[in-house]
Amino acid sequence: MQNIPTTVRVPMAELTALLARIFQRHGTSAEVAAILADNVARAQRDGSHSHGVFRIPGYLSTLASGWVDGKAVPVVSDSAPGYVSVDARNGFAQPALAAAREALVAKARRNGIALLAIHDSHHFAALWPDVEPFAREGLVALTFVNSMACVVPHGGRQALFGTNPIAFAAPRSGGDPLVFDLATSAIAHGDVQIAAREGRRLPPGHGVDGTGAPTEDPNAILNGGALLPFGGHKGSALSMMVELLAAALTGGNFSFGFTWANHPGAQTPRTGQLFIVIDPSRGPGSDFAQRAEELVGAMHDAGQPRMPGDRRYRQRKEAESQGVAIDGDQLARLRELAG
Amino acid sequence: MQNIPTTVRVPMAELTALLARIFQRHGTSAEVAAILADNVARAQRDGSHSHGVFRIPGYLSTLASGWVDGKAVPVVSDSAPGYVSVDARNGFAQPALAAAREALVAKARRNGIALLAIHDSHHFAALWPDVEPFAREGLVALTFVNSMACVVPHGGRQALFGTNPIAFAAPRSGGDPLVFDLATSAIAHGDVQIAAREGRRLPPGHGVDGTGAPTEDPNAILNGGALLPFGGHKGSALSMMVELLAAALTGGNFSFGFTWANHPGAQTPRTGQLFIVIDPSRGPGSDFAQRAEELVGAMHDAGQPRMPGDRRYRQRKEAESQGVAIDGDQLARLRELAG
Repeated sequence: MQNIPTTVRVPMAELTALLARIFQRHGTSAEVAAILADNVARAQRDGSHSHGVFRIPGYLSTLASGWVDGKAVPVVSDSAPGYVSVDARNGFAQPALAAAREALVAKARRNGIALLAIHDSHHFAALWPDVEPFAREGLVALTFVNSMACVVPHGGRQALFGTNPIAFAAPRSGGDPLVFDLATSAIAHGDVQIAAREGRRLPPGHGVDGTGAPTEDPNAILNGGALLPFGGHKGSALSMMVELLAAALTGGNFSFGFTWANHPGAQTPRTGQLFIVIDPSRGPGSDFAQRAEELVGAMHDAGQPRMPGDRRYRQRKEAESQGVAIDGDQLARLRELAG
Repeated sequence: MQNIPTTVRVPMAELTALLARIFQRHGTSAEVAAILADNVARAQRDGSHSHGVFRIPGYLSTLASGWVDGKAVPVVSDSAPGYVSVDARNGFAQPALAAAREALVAKARRNGIALLAIHDSHHFAALWPDVEPFAREGLVALTFVNSMACVVPHGGRQALFGTNPIAFAAPRSGGDPLVFDLATSAIAHGDVQIAAREGRRLPPGHGVDGTGAPTEDPNAILNGGALLPFGGHKGSALSMMVELLAAALTGGNFSFGFTWANHPGAQTPRTGQLFIVIDPSRGPGSDFAQRAEELVGAMHDAGQPRMPGDRRYRQRKEAESQGVAIDGDQLARLRELAG
């Protein structure tokens, strides 16, 4: 007999507090627990389920393995008038961002543009929560994070790049910010796992087998194979750019530049993350949010059914009135983990 | 009887001088002529033929139409400590870049990162010549330019975005910079025209016909149809970002925001261009060029046969010893145009 998943609704504050208890009970400081709990709860709230409570077991096995320091205190440096850098000291990336955020925004407002380079950090979350808040303050933000070698460069045979996502956020005057968060791989690793579990083949162009030959078999990708970049040589070039910006520029590891072999259970890449934040009010684009609204109108008129971020905002609205949707069994397991 | 194309070789300096004479004779100032001639000659030298002397008729018909001001003097503003902006005053983008370049580099070196926003500009060239020189000075550079409505947003029916390219350049310690220049459309407009002329069908996923339905017929794309973004919704999101950065942020036109209906012969989009320039030496990635070299080694080891920019550098080397390759008939026509 199979369990029928039952979705329950939990108030956002309750879910966040529950997740914070779990993190702290499994080896993080109270500060780090609060930041990660907020991040995971926001993903769950917005229907970004691959980065919601689904991620908790991965976080906990990583903490248990000793691979990441859940109590790390990030060290912020004022590198240059437009440049903040953070040594995350083998901790998570989100507390590093939180520690540097105020300085970053101040520099962007003062200079028109500023850079935040985080290194020795672990990013195990969606990228859109990192940039959306900047857009809510009227700023334009870009971020890049590299991960772990699982993508073959275009024309190559072996995995080298990470899924290497890029996220972008921009304010608009008539609605929620335009926010996208896209992996530069053709498909997310989790989606390959789901296809394998369900016995489905993938569309062409998503992965290669252990010999580097194209395959539509998810098992061949998972067992010694690798993902391909999205969009052929163009996606591959963008993935290379993410390695250069998130690792070389920050002083972080490349996606192929670390090993967790001595930490069974570790799942978080130990790399770097870069932010570029721009204040449109300092230049000729001071009516940026109105122009963005004009673009949205034109995209709607051209027949684009949905703006980047729209699906999340819809789910968020629903969660705000009804509570955050979560599978009943998952919630029960979370309560056990919280002790 | 068909003419057999014969390639001749011309010294770079001679080609550049010839092109400068052509530009100046057809309505540009001496300053603008020198900058455009250098740009076109560099593209021709590097085998970037779609942006080499092939473009001259388009430049000249545009100048003749009165659509662009070939004598415009760009006005540079010091918008903020990290922000330079240029009103190109309906002139070409390259003279605007040239006018602001020194200030931009100085700001990037002082602050770690700086922005250049150009508006009311015409960009009719490849993007890589704009960014490669920054990497030769040890800087990392990104640029974005929007063009004219010819790309349908993902899920939409009507052309709205331009081909909206992104170019990136980064220094490496052991060789020429890593430079890519990629349209966010699935295919360049010129390649659709060539397919139509040769009676070839296109691969799926490149364009739509006048009703917004997918088509592999290049004529259907050219006659009322449109291009698609590369890589589905991801390329479409990036193309939207280019509109926001190159137009909304700079104060330039969107790709759908101008009409050259009163200027028959006009071919250059009147939009904007954005540059982001980073000085790696100001932060924890001060060994950036060495790290980039490490990445190149790993990409070679993973089987990637060619680095972004490699083909251009090979052709450039050949041109430096043997002269720039050009079709004999084309050269004869250029000499006529130079008078």
